[in-house]
Amino acid sequence: MTITLYELAGADAERRFSPFVWRSRMALLHKGLAYEGRPWRFTEKEAIAFSGQGKVPVLVDGDATVADSWEIACYLETVYPDRPSLFGGEAGREGARFVQSWFDMTAIRFVAQIVMADVHAVLHEDDKDYFRTTREERFGKTLEEVSGDPAGARAGLTQALAPMRAILKTQPYLAGDAPNYMDYIPFGAFMWARCVSPLKLLEADDPVEAWRQRLLDAHDGAARRATCSEAD
Amino acid sequence: MTITLYELAGADAERRFSPFVWRSRMALLHKGLAYEGRPWRFTEKEAIAFSGQGKVPVLVDGDATVADSWEIACYLETVYPDRPSLFGGEAGREGARFVQSWFDMTAIRFVAQIVMADVHAVLHEDDKDYFRTTREERFGKTLEEVSGDPAGARAGLTQALAPMRAILKTQPYLAGDAPNYMDYIPFGAFMWARCVSPLKLLEADDPVEAWRQRLLDAHDGAARRATCSEAD
Repeated sequence: MTITLYELAGADAERRFSPFVWRSRMALLHKGLAYEGRPWRFTEKEAIAFSGQGKVPVLVDGDATVADSWEIACYLETVYPDRPSLFGGEAGREGARFVQSWFDMTAIRFVAQIVMADVHAVLHEDDKDYFRTTREERFGKTLEEVSGDPAGARAGLTQALAPMRAILKTQPYLAGDAPNYMDYIPFGAFMWARCVSPLKLLEADDPVEAWRQRLLDAHDGAARRATCSEAD
Repeated sequence: MTITLYELAGADAERRFSPFVWRSRMALLHKGLAYEGRPWRFTEKEAIAFSGQGKVPVLVDGDATVADSWEIACYLETVYPDRPSLFGGEAGREGARFVQSWFDMTAIRFVAQIVMADVHAVLHEDDKDYFRTTREERFGKTLEEVSGDPAGARAGLTQALAPMRAILKTQPYLAGDAPNYMDYIPFGAFMWARCVSPLKLLEADDPVEAWRQRLLDAHDGAARRATCSEAD
């Protein structure tokens, strides 16, 4: 039985850049579960209509269909309990829930500002209008304006990451000596940037950068090998 | 063997207002461990010199002396493993570590702004000069200036608590259905305010306020009964 993960793709179908899909990818890698990553584009709503909603990641595992990266992580943890744990128990899951709430309400907006115009540039022609229209409505400005101050966004990101940096000064991962889903949540956003942009988001001596490099190497370097725009 | 916790006290020795001592108090209550809370004032450095540093909480348990609220929680979890768990395992401990890093680098500063002048007002005369001098040096302004914009500080706090609020909209505690140390970390700061100030920090319909009320009632209402300035 093959697991299928619907993954947002660019004009190059191998460019899989969604930060939320990356959370699910890392979760599958962590569990050691083989899966087929199926490229999907923003405008292919009918291709995932069976999931009852219009966004990826969508995971199909036999008869089960699961949408939303958090739900996918919880599903994998429940259905594959003998595989390496994503959360390390219920209390660990609540810790990861907090990290997600924190990241998605603070730091991710700065990554979004940095990458928005670059995302548009790598999209398939069929997706470009859809993306521009929906995102410009969300931000209330043009994509070029959103991404017009990368230095300011980078400074905002650096500041927003302070709670995470303080921990990574003293241990290799948020989860301790080895990564778990707590780490994959912010890491997904760094993969978003890496997949579409050559910009460095972090200073070389930032403990968050050392953590990012470790996660690029994790699970046999799967994230490092992904099609991307960042030079290594 | 009695556990002793050195607790910061005001002119009224029963007023125990330190946010970090409250973390340790709640941890002891959670574990169901009897302890003697010994009042301590800022200038009584010699009374805790045996701990190798000059701040509370300091916990003494038989031959063991532990300073720092985080170290105290880890100590209690290790030495009393058969009592209710503070962290719910190693991954849960890392989740709590993140909550602490987040809270202490973001939201706590707004609580500090709100309470600083009120803290000074409740101190023993012997502590007032010490407190004013050290805090005014830390903030670079007078205590009255620090606490001069309670509405602004309250707005900042409301915004800073967004990641926590989103979770408390869907479940009673950060840790899930029951509280653990993840919850006691921010709760300590709310006890700080409650113990010295009549000001309401939260709107009545804020999910964080409902969570605070639940924690005031937890462990047989120990926090609610504490000597404080907030009217109930």
